[in-house]
Amino acid sequence: MSYNLLKGKKGIIFGALNEQSIAWKTAEHAAAEGAEFVLTNTPASMRFGTIDALAEKYNTIVIPADATNIEDLENLISKTMEHFGGKIDFVLHSIGMSPNVRKENAYNDINYNLYHQTLDISAISFHKILQACYKMDAINEWGSVVALSYIAAERTFCNYNDMADAKSMLESIARSFGYIYGQEKHVRINTISQSPTKTTAGSGITGFNNLVDYAEMMSPLGNASADDCADYIITLFSDLTRKVTMQNLFHDGGFSNMGMSIKGMEAISKGLSEKK
Amino acid sequence: MSYNLLKGKKGIIFGALNEQSIAWKTAEHAAAEGAEFVLTNTPASMRFGTIDALAEKYNTIVIPADATNIEDLENLISKTMEHFGGKIDFVLHSIGMSPNVRKENAYNDINYNLYHQTLDISAISFHKILQACYKMDAINEWGSVVALSYIAAERTFCNYNDMADAKSMLESIARSFGYIYGQEKHVRINTISQSPTKTTAGSGITGFNNLVDYAEMMSPLGNASADDCADYIITLFSDLTRKVTMQNLFHDGGFSNMGMSIKGMEAISKGLSEKK
Amino acid sequence: MSYNLLKGKKGIIFGALNEQSIAWKTAEHAAAEGAEFVLTNTPASMRFGTIDALAEKYNTIVIPADATNIEDLENLISKTMEHFGGKIDFVLHSIGMSPNVRKENAYNDINYNLYHQTLDISAISFHKILQACYKMDAINEWGSVVALSYIAAERTFCNYNDMADAKSMLESIARSFGYIYGQEKHVRINTISQSPTKTTAGSGITGFNNLVDYAEMMSPLGNASADDCADYIITLFSDLTRKVTMQNLFHDGGFSNMGMSIKGMEAISKGLSEKK
Amino acid sequence: MSYNLLKGKKGIIFGALNEQSIAWKTAEHAAAEGAEFVLTNTPASMRFGTIDALAEKYNTIVIPADATNIEDLENLISKTMEHFGGKIDFVLHSIGMSPNVRKENAYNDINYNLYHQTLDISAISFHKILQACYKMDAINEWGSVVALSYIAAERTFCNYNDMADAKSMLESIARSFGYIYGQEKHVRINTISQSPTKTTAGSGITGFNNLVDYAEMMSPLGNASADDCADYIITLFSDLTRKVTMQNLFHDGGFSNMGMSIKGMEAISKGLSEKK
Repeated sequence: MSYNLLKGKKGIIFGALNEQSIAWKTAEHAAAEGAEFVLTNTPASMRFGTIDALAEKYNTIVIPADATNIEDLENLISKTMEHFGGKIDFVLHSIGMSPNVRKENAYNDINYNLYHQTLDISAISFHKILQACYKMDAINEWGSVVALSYIAAERTFCNYNDMADAKSMLESIARSFGYIYGQEKHVRINTISQSPTKTTAGSGITGFNNLVDYAEMMSPLGNASADDCADYIITLFSDLTRKVTMQNLFHDGGFSNMGMSIKGMEAISKGLSEKK
Repeated sequence: MSYNLLKGKKGIIFGALNEQSIAWKTAEHAAAEGAEFVLTNTPASMRFGTIDALAEKYNTIVIPADATNIEDLENLISKTMEHFGGKIDFVLHSIGMSPNVRKENAYNDINYNLYHQTLDISAISFHKILQACYKMDAINEWGSVVALSYIAAERTFCNYNDMADAKSMLESIARSFGYIYGQEKHVRINTISQSPTKTTAGSGITGFNNLVDYAEMMSPLGNASADDCADYIITLFSDLTRKVTMQNLFHDGGFSNMGMSIKGMEAISKGLSEKK
Repeated sequence: MSYNLLKGKKGIIFGALNEQSIAWKTAEHAAAEGAEFVLTNTPASMRFGTIDALAEKYNTIVIPADATNIEDLENLISKTMEHFGGKIDFVLHSIGMSPNVRKENAYNDINYNLYHQTLDISAISFHKILQACYKMDAINEWGSVVALSYIAAERTFCNYNDMADAKSMLESIARSFGYIYGQEKHVRINTISQSPTKTTAGSGITGFNNLVDYAEMMSPLGNASADDCADYIITLFSDLTRKVTMQNLFHDGGFSNMGMSIKGMEAISKGLSEKK
Repeated sequence: MSYNLLKGKKGIIFGALNEQSIAWKTAEHAAAEGAEFVLTNTPASMRFGTIDALAEKYNTIVIPADATNIEDLENLISKTMEHFGGKIDFVLHSIGMSPNVRKENAYNDINYNLYHQTLDISAISFHKILQACYKMDAINEWGSVVALSYIAAERTFCNYNDMADAKSMLESIARSFGYIYGQEKHVRINTISQSPTKTTAGSGITGFNNLVDYAEMMSPLGNASADDCADYIITLFSDLTRKVTMQNLFHDGGFSNMGMSIKGMEAISKGLSEKK
């Protein structure tokens, strides 16, 4: 189903690794809704994934960029504006990685150089993109920027480690920059706090499958998939949500506002009774 | 601009009084997006407003109902299902009134019978609609219900009086019923926390114009209008937001996450210096 | 251990039923800290419980009052002020009951007369107490009022039913009245969102023991007991927290900000695997 | 007034610069309540301020430490444990500084090296202290750690710049580490979100005096002073709050839950009318 919701809109999509990626799905849905976009990822992720196939499918280009590198970002933005012959309307930030998680450093035995890297990759990259776009005046009035977050920004999930702090910071950046970009250029900036999603990135977390099962059990509508998320992102890129900004929007089948479900209670009481 | 986002969808819209009403604008936008709907309001509001003109314009019917009256609601729902020959897909609750505010009873000199009326009209009516729909199995799988709220549910605004408590309760009902209706029928229930809007309802509050000016000054994107709100409601009724439920969604140009803007600071420091 | 934290302070404590009650523990701790108080409960609760023994132990009086009845409250307040020969410094509201829960009416099959009763008993009673105190100018400057809440005000717990809506409203009343009473008389008003506690009131909820076990498992410090709660209430009645107002304060061993604990994950994965 | 609330308790206080400092006031109140403590600050801050006088007054020692430097922290902790002949019971983190604010780099023209420094000084230092304490097992069971935050962590205040992101991260660290330290050692970790306070640190922000005036006008109980804050911190270090953890506690005279006060509305409408 397609509605032409993004007809004539142009954007940059960060973080499409492979077909599981939310960014990948967003690219597909955006294309179906009439948008054009440039794809980007780090050179390493490009080799590891299949982004070129995506670009080919939608007849667009991939411009490699390390989102922690200002020069890369400036190059990406200027080439994108050249490509489109003008400004863009939307940006998706779907970037996150913790070297501490990768190396299985516990949160109470963290390596601080890696901690800074987690922040740089997963949160500050968002500021760098926004600042570069702002300075280069790359986004049209009433443009829309979305970054993907997770509820660990508000509540503690074991094993999510320093990514929790990075996501808190990411959501803060959306507010802080959202004020400035909104006031001056009417550009809106939001984060989506998405259900745990079986992407390559998500799978790096210990116990991730259990977390997915738990969230499924606690969410009245079930977990939101990457496809569902792409749908939601489309609404945020469209002209129908022009006055939504500086928000963190839960897209999670209701998980965030559940305390306890009947299903959850059943599983837990089984688990508890077995324990005794 | 129209996208056919609601093609084939049917619903009930509560609370269209006149052209300023958010419910009125929602009806217009829903029609433009391909939806059909039944309109409803209390008999008193129908006389006071111009809902018949709206019904005529979109070739639909008005079924009078006092939303605090179960029988009225059951009649409304069964007639609506008859009218459409089947279930509905969306409901808009845009109902709120405080007799204490009308009579200018201060919050610390409240009349408790009227307090119960405020709750009944502005919050419990939402539960009654949901319970009636649930019992009559009136809403299709993946249907969407939206009620309009205001940030006074979370923070205190002088003069908003017992409506603050009613809105808190309204948002709680959305969560409580959202769990049940989501789990069992995949129906989602959300509230939109909208900018202060110059409707007939809003204008009843003392100092309302100042509040609107203040919110405008503090919101990076400016206040969201009734038209903007209708746009946003359309996205929530569409199939693109199927996994969003039990949420209170701020639609306010960023107001809710602003602490202090430069514009705000200027006006305040002028006001403060004049005071000295 | 005692610190004389409430030396010279006088107050009213609502809701001491028996030794399990948080209000009962608060009375004991307040006495140990040098406070004097009047006890009150409904005549029915007085018969059902053992409040007289508590009064005797601390050499004070019980003044029966139905907290939903204005005349009863006015009588209570004037007799209390007579008893002390002056104003009071603190009030504890520990009152909550849902006739719908008692009658096992599901939230989607609620009786609306009983719903109003739930609100009247569990939330509006708080407003009535505050308004009566305000009108009779019964609370000293920098006095402190506390009501007990539960996290179901923010998130949905199956079986908590219409009490969730009542608690949301209770917390809103604390904010709404807290503004007025703070501004005009420097009286502060807060709610404490307490761990599920094995009191007579708590035990009325279906699956309550499982909920307690679950919360224990998810709270890094374990559940807060009634005794712990009394300790915390003492700090809020003391002069050390004079600038805390309009807040909902979680007193729950960390539960409210936990997404998933290791213990929780273990129990759940056992429960889930058994299910498969 | 003193209650012996911290009798026998020992701790470390970071960040006492001069008599205006919240850490300074906390030291004074802690001493009055029977606690012993070691003071610490960076060598630069020690020269700039008057911490030695404070140490002398309370007959304790100052151990210089840069809180971003692990070795310094380990030295501080081991010397403190030597000094006391055992573990400590409380820690106060009152540290925050943004080189970007100092250099007047706007948030949309930030220097990224300085951004990392802001985070390192104002947020990561908290993690470093916690991790060092944890590894050295320096805190007794049921010990209490407090860090000072500001509402800019949740809402955007113009001019607060990258400190907003740092405070968001700080609050996240309190949750993330609070889970681990609570679960394993029953140590609780909270942040206090304090009114804008006229300290040397606060005064660095452009328009700070206006912000203080605005907050005063919007807070029903007025702004909380450094002395008030010290009182509140004492309650969090005491045994009366043992089950409070992972929380961000607003200590602000009600500011955080105010939308609009009558006083605020008056000043704003004056400011707005003058503008016209």
